[in-house]
Amino acid sequence: MFEFTLDARAGRARTGIFHTPHGGLATPVFAPVGTQAAVKTLTPAQVREIGATLVLANTYHLYLRPGDELVREMGGLHEFMQWLGPLLTDSGGFQVFSLSGTRKIDDDGVTFKSHVDGSTHRFTPEKSIAIQENLGADIIMAFDECSDPNDHAYSKIAMERTHRWAERCLAARTRDDQALFGILQGGVDPDLRIASAEFIASLPFPGLAIGGLSVGETKKEMHDMLDVVMPLLPEDKPRYLMGVGTPEDLIEGVRRGVDIFDCVLPTRLARHNAAFSPEGRLNLMNAAYARDKRPIDETCDCYTCRTFTRAYLRHLIVAKELLAGTLLSIHNLRALIRLMETMRGYIVEGIFEEKAPMLLKLWKNNAKRMDNG
Amino acid sequence: MFEFTLDARAGRARTGIFHTPHGGLATPVFAPVGTQAAVKTLTPAQVREIGATLVLANTYHLYLRPGDELVREMGGLHEFMQWLGPLLTDSGGFQVFSLSGTRKIDDDGVTFKSHVDGSTHRFTPEKSIAIQENLGADIIMAFDECSDPNDHAYSKIAMERTHRWAERCLAARTRDDQALFGILQGGVDPDLRIASAEFIASLPFPGLAIGGLSVGETKKEMHDMLDVVMPLLPEDKPRYLMGVGTPEDLIEGVRRGVDIFDCVLPTRLARHNAAFSPEGRLNLMNAAYARDKRPIDETCDCYTCRTFTRAYLRHLIVAKELLAGTLLSIHNLRALIRLMETMRGYIVEGIFEEKAPMLLKLWKNNAKRMDNG
Repeated sequence: MFEFTLDARAGRARTGIFHTPHGGLATPVFAPVGTQAAVKTLTPAQVREIGATLVLANTYHLYLRPGDELVREMGGLHEFMQWLGPLLTDSGGFQVFSLSGTRKIDDDGVTFKSHVDGSTHRFTPEKSIAIQENLGADIIMAFDECSDPNDHAYSKIAMERTHRWAERCLAARTRDDQALFGILQGGVDPDLRIASAEFIASLPFPGLAIGGLSVGETKKEMHDMLDVVMPLLPEDKPRYLMGVGTPEDLIEGVRRGVDIFDCVLPTRLARHNAAFSPEGRLNLMNAAYARDKRPIDETCDCYTCRTFTRAYLRHLIVAKELLAGTLLSIHNLRALIRLMETMRGYIVEGIFEEKAPMLLKLWKNNAKRMDNG
Repeated sequence: MFEFTLDARAGRARTGIFHTPHGGLATPVFAPVGTQAAVKTLTPAQVREIGATLVLANTYHLYLRPGDELVREMGGLHEFMQWLGPLLTDSGGFQVFSLSGTRKIDDDGVTFKSHVDGSTHRFTPEKSIAIQENLGADIIMAFDECSDPNDHAYSKIAMERTHRWAERCLAARTRDDQALFGILQGGVDPDLRIASAEFIASLPFPGLAIGGLSVGETKKEMHDMLDVVMPLLPEDKPRYLMGVGTPEDLIEGVRRGVDIFDCVLPTRLARHNAAFSPEGRLNLMNAAYARDKRPIDETCDCYTCRTFTRAYLRHLIVAKELLAGTLLSIHNLRALIRLMETMRGYIVEGIFEEKAPMLLKLWKNNAKRMDNG
């Protein structure tokens, strides 16, 4: 269980299979986010048709609603949401630390108020593991503290706490059918990142995650941190870059040896009427598309692009038909998953290093982050 | 084209095939409503998987948004919305007459204000046909005036206007690949209904519709009016009971010889968290379903019932996930379409009259109208 078989390499990039109780996961892989046990607006059948193989769900949200004990009673998260492939849950840490002003951190854990009803709750490393064991995902995450990339002193404190919490998570776990991944922190400080990579890599985690990136630092800082930590991580364990990202981020991450990604970007863009395309991100609300008979992307093989014109999608958006969100989510997710499939193919064929600049150029116009575009 | 082949009869009930340019339509049939060129929250692939064969779209809405000329430029409504089976458009009359206070009726037509932007528009019989020809559905409807069932004097005026408009619609049409259906009116007055049935049946329409029912009259009044008019309609033309209905209405309609139905009820109920089930209408928001591992209906063959528990559906509703609306729409539409399939089977097997009371009993708890339940 949780063996990671590497099939091919190209520079630091690699492709392989991570074996889980719900099937082998071909890497590098992009995971759609199903925050509340549902990839927004899509049925599991549609998520599968898109080519998704791994889905992420959020511990914080499911703990609050419907409750992790209820999910366990219902047979666990796979059974509850009927996603029968590999599942990953985060630790709840990131969401809780994002509740600025309403959470209080100490060395033992975090006390916070629910965004649903204002009630007070407490997460500790042990509690996070207990919740994730109730949920029952294949890959679960250590409880970590994500710091502000611009605050060096806090980054150091958060990193040290993350290390102690990592050991407590390992001690707390009781299920051997879940792969508990350790998370490195360290902000944008190379020395902290090196210390964190070395410490977390020394613990018996079957996989390792890079946390605290894509949280406000520059692209260059993200790439620099990956350049610093990736060579320090063991080759035989999968590496997960959390909360990333844009098409460009995926290419730059794979190049540096990342195996797993997740991001809400494709579904969030869909809710804002935006679609990935070779021309750049399209805002399909735009009147320019009112009579446009082309699909979003003539090269895309998704249901939306095989079936509908931009004119129809624009009509749905203007008429406030929810189907627009479904159809754009299908396209945006497929675009990133297809990009991952393309990169896996290039690595296997031994042409990834040669093709990566072309991929980066192709996706340049889509590299803007959500907050900029 | 537009031949109606009758295959079997059981009392007044009958089953047949209505031949359209987009395929043969097995009757009796229930049509999901795709008001704005989309069955709410569902892809055409999902609508097809549900077993739907005919879809209705609304002329009033599509005239305003995206505009019938745009739809024509995009290749017509089938191509635009990618529903490649038979399509039906209403005349726009019902919506326009429902805009009480903002519309003005005269013998030539109706002037009204758009609900979208308040702009002033005018529909006449000729205009309605021109719009419907631009949209290009297989079945189009004559422009009629629906009256208040409790206002006899107005019912007579509206009926007479409907008759004159029916002749103008026949004169105005130019496409022979669309079946123009005539509509009878007459409120809840048997004499008016008889006069209307005789007049409309005397005109060269390939199909006939019963308008002005399910608009506030009692169930008994609806059944009485059907009992009065159905024997007066030619056997060799399909009969369409507009805007109906509940499961009970469908059974009572088929019993009296109705061939085509449409109603927004299944998708509207879905948006209100309600689902058809043998136990009655379930409100899936109810806390009683929080740990209910059963599907909505154990006898149902829809994707939702084959896949998800009531507990999961309730979670999606409570967590405000739009997927809930999609999954309940799939179930509610499938429930009515399966009921029609069952009735077609019973008619073919010659056991419909014997089985109808059992069907009525089974669906009794689901017979409540939306406004009551």
